[in-house]
Amino acid sequence: MSAEARLDELGLTLPEVPTPVASYVNCVRTGNLLFLSGGLPVENGAIVTGKVPDTISVESATAAAKNIILNRLAVIRQEIGSLDKVRRIVNLQGFVNSAPDFPDHPKVINGASDLLLEIFGEAGKHSRIALGAAALPLHAAVEISLVVEVE
Amino acid sequence: MSAEARLDELGLTLPEVPTPVASYVNCVRTGNLLFLSGGLPVENGAIVTGKVPDTISVESATAAAKNIILNRLAVIRQEIGSLDKVRRIVNLQGFVNSAPDFPDHPKVINGASDLLLEIFGEAGKHSRIALGAAALPLHAAVEISLVVEVE
Amino acid sequence: MSAEARLDELGLTLPEVPTPVASYVNCVRTGNLLFLSGGLPVENGAIVTGKVPDTISVESATAAAKNIILNRLAVIRQEIGSLDKVRRIVNLQGFVNSAPDFPDHPKVINGASDLLLEIFGEAGKHSRIALGAAALPLHAAVEISLVVEVE
Repeated sequence: MSAEARLDELGLTLPEVPTPVASYVNCVRTGNLLFLSGGLPVENGAIVTGKVPDTISVESATAAAKNIILNRLAVIRQEIGSLDKVRRIVNLQGFVNSAPDFPDHPKVINGASDLLLEIFGEAGKHSRIALGAAALPLHAAVEISLVVEVE
Repeated sequence: MSAEARLDELGLTLPEVPTPVASYVNCVRTGNLLFLSGGLPVENGAIVTGKVPDTISVESATAAAKNIILNRLAVIRQEIGSLDKVRRIVNLQGFVNSAPDFPDHPKVINGASDLLLEIFGEAGKHSRIALGAAALPLHAAVEISLVVEVE
Repeated sequence: MSAEARLDELGLTLPEVPTPVASYVNCVRTGNLLFLSGGLPVENGAIVTGKVPDTISVESATAAAKNIILNRLAVIRQEIGSLDKVRRIVNLQGFVNSAPDFPDHPKVINGASDLLLEIFGEAGKHSRIALGAAALPLHAAVEISLVVEVE
């Protein structure tokens, strides 16, 4: 099944492509690689904020990580026209706004990774680094960037 | 206008290429991509230090981010001979030495992004991630790495 | 001398390839580049934990960084069959689980960089970013990811 068909089957709709919060663009293509900017979780027009686990739970941060993937996919679709032109999710960097003793970044970032696997299957299997940031832009709970190979 | 001409017009001079502070090199080329090491801000031979906003202001950290771009451009020029051979600034990673509740990483890293746009125009539009580090080498206020496509 | 021969000469044995702790894979190849996932230090089956320098010393964290390279090399060998097919270590990202005022990330990450130089010689000279994370997965003391150019 194609990635676009799978997205439909999962009942997922991609949001509007976010406007970068500063002097950069959402995505740059070099050769067959897309480098995506760090995406923040946006719900009902507002950034999902908090420091895990002090002011946002692991569960809510995991949902935020999944949310970011939806807006990152919107960026990819805008750039190349269709998610079906994605050959491989190459790399994911996931930063969690963490209390200094938080150890469960992999759980949080799985919200993103699991959705990529669901949508892209084998092509969604990516290399990854997950870790704790001291702070994130606009108090966001999670920030994720991607490198993607495309047709 | 070429990037080198633009640099002159802006009255900017690139510093000496910095010596890596440890066991690595400033830049590695693979295909048409340069991967640059994380650069630190250096003024009058000393690292610009501080944690934003506790011991260095947003304004000073923004100037430090701009400063790093100048020394990163010195690295690029040394590697490929001229900034005019830059095809595209592909990706920028900007880490701000942050207090745990600091939210304005985008403002700080704009010091770097805005200068890239000024010098390279369209070719300077890059993807980017900006976030807060718990601490940076030698107490630096900002650290920035780049991926650059060249001729 | 080949990298595999050099590894033997140094008396180093690569560990079992680690199982990713979550929903991702150890390595993705795109063109001639391998993007490796963030590796954690594992000794005697347990993650090397601690915050530098509060609960683990610089010396122990440096040893942990070296340890990570051994398990990253195991990943590379599994992916391409032999370390002798490595053309260049392109980029290393080294995150140290840091107290907020720790400045010696370069020393810690040299544990990784120096070993790469010892094993690969010129091909081991890499670009690098080293910095402090607020927290790392499973309380790990260090986390390192790599981009590698292969035959």
